[in-house]
Amino acid sequence: MDLQAILHDIDATLRPRLGQAGTVASYIPALARVSPHQFGIAVHTCDGREFAAGDAATPFSIQSVSKVFTLTMAMRHYGEALWERIGREPSGNPFNSLVQLEYEQGRPRNPFINAGAIAVADRLASRNPAPGGAKADILAFLVGEPVTYDEEVARSEAQTGFRNLAMANFMKSFGKLDHDVATVLDVYFHQCALALDCRQLARAAAFLAMDGAHPLGRSRAPVCTERQTRRINSLMLTCGTYDAAGDVAFLIGLPCKSGVGGGIIAVVPDTLALCVWSPALDATGNSLLGLQALELFVAKTGLSVF
Amino acid sequence: MDLQAILHDIDATLRPRLGQAGTVASYIPALARVSPHQFGIAVHTCDGREFAAGDAATPFSIQSVSKVFTLTMAMRHYGEALWERIGREPSGNPFNSLVQLEYEQGRPRNPFINAGAIAVADRLASRNPAPGGAKADILAFLVGEPVTYDEEVARSEAQTGFRNLAMANFMKSFGKLDHDVATVLDVYFHQCALALDCRQLARAAAFLAMDGAHPLGRSRAPVCTERQTRRINSLMLTCGTYDAAGDVAFLIGLPCKSGVGGGIIAVVPDTLALCVWSPALDATGNSLLGLQALELFVAKTGLSVF
Amino acid sequence: MDLQAILHDIDATLRPRLGQAGTVASYIPALARVSPHQFGIAVHTCDGREFAAGDAATPFSIQSVSKVFTLTMAMRHYGEALWERIGREPSGNPFNSLVQLEYEQGRPRNPFINAGAIAVADRLASRNPAPGGAKADILAFLVGEPVTYDEEVARSEAQTGFRNLAMANFMKSFGKLDHDVATVLDVYFHQCALALDCRQLARAAAFLAMDGAHPLGRSRAPVCTERQTRRINSLMLTCGTYDAAGDVAFLIGLPCKSGVGGGIIAVVPDTLALCVWSPALDATGNSLLGLQALELFVAKTGLSVF
Amino acid sequence: MDLQAILHDIDATLRPRLGQAGTVASYIPALARVSPHQFGIAVHTCDGREFAAGDAATPFSIQSVSKVFTLTMAMRHYGEALWERIGREPSGNPFNSLVQLEYEQGRPRNPFINAGAIAVADRLASRNPAPGGAKADILAFLVGEPVTYDEEVARSEAQTGFRNLAMANFMKSFGKLDHDVATVLDVYFHQCALALDCRQLARAAAFLAMDGAHPLGRSRAPVCTERQTRRINSLMLTCGTYDAAGDVAFLIGLPCKSGVGGGIIAVVPDTLALCVWSPALDATGNSLLGLQALELFVAKTGLSVF
Repeated sequence: MDLQAILHDIDATLRPRLGQAGTVASYIPALARVSPHQFGIAVHTCDGREFAAGDAATPFSIQSVSKVFTLTMAMRHYGEALWERIGREPSGNPFNSLVQLEYEQGRPRNPFINAGAIAVADRLASRNPAPGGAKADILAFLVGEPVTYDEEVARSEAQTGFRNLAMANFMKSFGKLDHDVATVLDVYFHQCALALDCRQLARAAAFLAMDGAHPLGRSRAPVCTERQTRRINSLMLTCGTYDAAGDVAFLIGLPCKSGVGGGIIAVVPDTLALCVWSPALDATGNSLLGLQALELFVAKTGLSVF
Repeated sequence: MDLQAILHDIDATLRPRLGQAGTVASYIPALARVSPHQFGIAVHTCDGREFAAGDAATPFSIQSVSKVFTLTMAMRHYGEALWERIGREPSGNPFNSLVQLEYEQGRPRNPFINAGAIAVADRLASRNPAPGGAKADILAFLVGEPVTYDEEVARSEAQTGFRNLAMANFMKSFGKLDHDVATVLDVYFHQCALALDCRQLARAAAFLAMDGAHPLGRSRAPVCTERQTRRINSLMLTCGTYDAAGDVAFLIGLPCKSGVGGGIIAVVPDTLALCVWSPALDATGNSLLGLQALELFVAKTGLSVF
Repeated sequence: MDLQAILHDIDATLRPRLGQAGTVASYIPALARVSPHQFGIAVHTCDGREFAAGDAATPFSIQSVSKVFTLTMAMRHYGEALWERIGREPSGNPFNSLVQLEYEQGRPRNPFINAGAIAVADRLASRNPAPGGAKADILAFLVGEPVTYDEEVARSEAQTGFRNLAMANFMKSFGKLDHDVATVLDVYFHQCALALDCRQLARAAAFLAMDGAHPLGRSRAPVCTERQTRRINSLMLTCGTYDAAGDVAFLIGLPCKSGVGGGIIAVVPDTLALCVWSPALDATGNSLLGLQALELFVAKTGLSVF
Repeated sequence: MDLQAILHDIDATLRPRLGQAGTVASYIPALARVSPHQFGIAVHTCDGREFAAGDAATPFSIQSVSKVFTLTMAMRHYGEALWERIGREPSGNPFNSLVQLEYEQGRPRNPFINAGAIAVADRLASRNPAPGGAKADILAFLVGEPVTYDEEVARSEAQTGFRNLAMANFMKSFGKLDHDVATVLDVYFHQCALALDCRQLARAAAFLAMDGAHPLGRSRAPVCTERQTRRINSLMLTCGTYDAAGDVAFLIGLPCKSGVGGGIIAVVPDTLALCVWSPALDATGNSLLGLQALELFVAKTGLSVF
C-alpha cells in the first residue's frame, strides 16, 4: 500500500473544495483570522515511517485534540482512581452543556467534553502542584517536538471562555475540583492553545496505535499500558467528535479526536496514527474536509475497525 | 388592633421554640456562628407608627431580602426595559438551578432567584458605572438608616460562591451581562452582606405597603410608582420564598421575601410592612420561626390578601 | 358601586376589539369552529346578586377551569392526604411538560397543570369507583345548573390527547395512578368537556369568595372549609393561568383559573366571583380579551388583593 | 483457533459463578420466573461453521436484541429516509428517558433506545399496513428458524409497559408516529417477545459479520448492503448496551446488542457473530455473565476491533 500516493490523492481530491463550505471557528480573533484555504494530512506508522501531504508542516491550534494527551497523562498517574471524578460514557448533549453536569452532581460524563477535560486538568494540577507545573508537564509529555503554547490564544480563551468558567465553578460548587478555578483553567486554556502541525500530531498520537509503546522506539519507556491505550481508543470512538460520534463511527470507523482549530487525529490500531487538518468546520464543530479526508483514507486503504 | 400586644404575644409564643428545630445557614463561617436563639419582629405602618418585639434591634445579614431593594432601584431606572433581561414568572426549580437558565438562554425566570438578582446587579452597575458606584447607590437607597456592608460576609461569599460564579459566567456566555463577572458579583455579594435589624428592614420595606410613597412622608419623592409597587408585591407573592411560595401564599397570604440569614419581610398593602427574623431555617431555606411568626400575625390580625 | 354598569362598560369597551387579535384553540374541531366574535362576563356576589353583560348566557367548553371544581371535590374527600400525590408549588415549565414529571418521579408540581389534574381525576375515580362514578359526581357537584358533558368534545380530546395519554401512562409507570389510564382519562376528558355559560360559572365559583359557604345560602352544607378555600385561591393565584401567573398576579391581582375554551374565573375574596369568556387566546393560552376584561374590572372597582 | 474448545473453556469458567450475582429482570412474571442458573454461548462463522457450549439450545426472550433485526428491515426498505424520524447518536441518558425526547421534539436519539425502536416499529407498520403485517414480516425476516412469539410475554409487556405507552403517545403528540399507538406497540411488544436460542441468534446475526451477505450462502439475496451493515455495527458499538456502551467498547471492543432477557449478540466483522445468554443482569441492565463471557472470548481469541 503506497501511503504517500494515497495522501497525495486525498490532498488532490480535497484541495479544490477548500473554502467552498464550512466556517472557521470565530469565538476568538486568533482562530477567526486563520485562512480556511489550508489542508494537511500526515501519517505515522507503527514501524516508524512518516508520510505527509498538503499543509502538513503548518502549525495550528490543536484545541480539543489536546484532551487525548492530558487524559493519557492523568490515566498514567492516577490509574482507575481517575474515574471517581470523571465518567466514561457518551454524553448525548451538546459538548458544553451544564444540564447533564447538574443532574450528575458535577461529575462530567467523559473526559472529552469540556467539563471532563477541565476535571482532568485539575488532576494534572494535583499531580504537580508547583506554579506552572502542569503546563510544564504537558510540554514534557510532548517532548521531542518543538512545541509551544500560543499565549495569544490562551489569553483570548481566558478572556472569552465564560462557558468554561461557568462549568469549572459549577464543578467547584460540587466539591469536584481540588484547585482554584483560575489555576485549573490556566492549564486547560493553555493545553487548548498548543500549536502543532500534522506531522507532529500524528507522531504524538502514534502510541495509541502501538499498544502504548513509545513512538520513537521500544527501547524507551512506554507511554502507557496496552489496556490504557484500549480505553483511550474506545473513548475516542464513542465520544471523540462531539455530537457526531455515531456518524463518525459509521463513516470512518476509527477512534478520532477533533478540535475546533480544524485538526483531527485518528488511530488504526496496530498500524498507524494519522492527523488531518483544515480549519473550516461543519455544523457539528468538526473539520469538514478533515472528516472527508478520513473517509477517503478509509475507503482507499480499507483500514477501518468495522 | 393593638399591634404592640400582638407582637409581644407572638414573641412570647415562639421564644420557647428557639433552638428546637431548623438549621442555621452554614456555608460561610460568618453565618454559621450566628446563634439560633434569636427572634425579632417589627412593624412599620402606613401612618408611620412602629412596633417591635424580641431581638428587633439586632442587626443580621439580610442576604436575599436585599433583592427587593435592588429590584426596586433597577425598575425605577429602567422601567419596562428591565424585563428584556429578566423574566417575571415563578421558577419551579431550586433557586440556584442552572438547568432552567440553559433552556432559557441565559435569561433568568425572575429577579428573586440568584441568577435574576445577579442580572439586576449588572443593571445597577450600568446605571452607575463608576468603581463602587452601584454599591454606593444601594446604601443611598437605604439612606436614613446607619446601614453598612459586613465586609467579612461579602468576602466569604466571594470565596465560596462558586454556584453564583457559575451562573454569572453562564449568563455572560449568553451575552446577558454587560459588566465583568467580578464587578457584577462584587455588587451582588455586597448587597447580600448588608446588615440591618428588623426595625430598619420594616421601615425600608414600608413603601411597598404605601403604593410606593416614601415611608418618611409624602412630602418626599416617592420611592417608585404605584404600578411598580404592585409588580414587586406580586413577584414577592409568587416567587419570594424559594420553593415554598405556594405554601406561603396559602398559609400567610402576603407578599414576602426571605433570606438565608433568617430574615423575612412581608407586606400588607395599604396597611403596614413587617419584618421577622430568626436564624434557624427550614428545609426550604426559609426562617422556620419567621414563617410561624407571620402565620400567627395573619391569624391574629386577619390581615391576609385572601 | 354599580356592578351592572361596570360590566356593560367593559363589554362596550372590548366588543370592538373582537376578532382583532389572538387565536381560537384549534387542536380539536369542536373548539376550532367556535366564533372568536364572542365575549361574556358575569358576576355573582357574596350576598347573592348576579350581574352579566355580553354573551354571558352562551355555553362554552370550560376545559381547564374544571380543574378548580375537581380539586375542590378531591380536597373535600381526601384532606391533607391528597398532597401525597400532588404538589402545591408553581411549575415554571410549559403546562404539559414531562420533564419535570420525570425529575419528580411522577408527582405533578400542582393540581392545575394537566398532569396534576389527571392525578386528581384518579383520586375522584377512587372516591367513587363505580363505572362512570366520578363523572356523575362532578355533575352532582355542579347541581342546580343544567350542566352536561359535550360528548363530541370529550371524544375528540380522547382521540387527539396524546400528550395527556403520555403523561398519564408516565405517572402510571411510577405507580402514581391507582386506576387504568383509560378510566382516569375518561374522567379528565369529560371534565374538560363540560359546557357552562358565564353566569353558571360565576355562580359555581362563588364559594371561593365566601370562605367555602354554599352560594345558594348558608342554610345549605358548605362546599368546603375556609382553610380549603384559601388553599384553592392561593393555588389559583400562583398557578392558575399557565406560564402567565406572574403577570396575571401583577396586572389583575386576583386568584384566576383559565381554560383554552377562552373562559376565566376570578375570585375577589369576601366579595364576589366573576367569569369572563372570549374564545381567542393569547400566546400564553389565556383568553386575550378575558384578561383585558379582568384588568378593566380591577381598575374600575379597585378590587385587587394587592 | 479451536473455537469449540474456547467456548467450552468459557462455559467451564463461568458456570461456577451462576447465581452468585446479578438479578433476573422481574417487571413481568414470565421473565421473573426464568432460572438464573443458565448460561449459553454460540458462534456462527462467516464460512458457515457453528460452535456452541452450555445452554445454547434453550430458547429465551430476546427482548431488545430484536431491535437489530427490525432496524435492519427498516433500513433495507426506507434507506436514508429512515433517519428523518430517528437519530444515530448515543443518548447519554437512561434508555427509557422522556426528557431527551421532549427536547428533541419527539425524534429519538437512536434506534436502540426504546423510543427509537418504537419509531422503527411504526415504520415497519407503514411498510406492511395489513393487520399483523409487520409481525408476520419480522418472522419472515428470521425465516429458516422455527421462531415464534411468546404470546404470554407480549401480553404482559402490553399490560405493564406504561413507560413505553407514555413514550409512544409522546411521539404521537409530536406527529412522529403514523400509526395508532396500539398498532405500533403491538409490533414492538411482539418483537421483544420473540423466543430464540443462542444458536439461532448467532446465525440470525451473522450477516452483520458478512458485509450483509446471507448467512446461508452468497447464492441467496443479501440481507442488506455492506454500507448498511457498517451503520448497524457502529450503532451497536456506540449505543447497543444501554448506559454501558463506553465500558463495553473498552472491555470488549465489539459491536454488541443486549436485551433484558439476558441475551447479547456480538459481531466480529469479516469473521463471526456470536450470542451469549445468561438471565441475571448487572446494574446497567446487561447480562452479567454475558459480558464476562464476551470479555473472555476477546481475551482468548484476540478478536477485538481495537
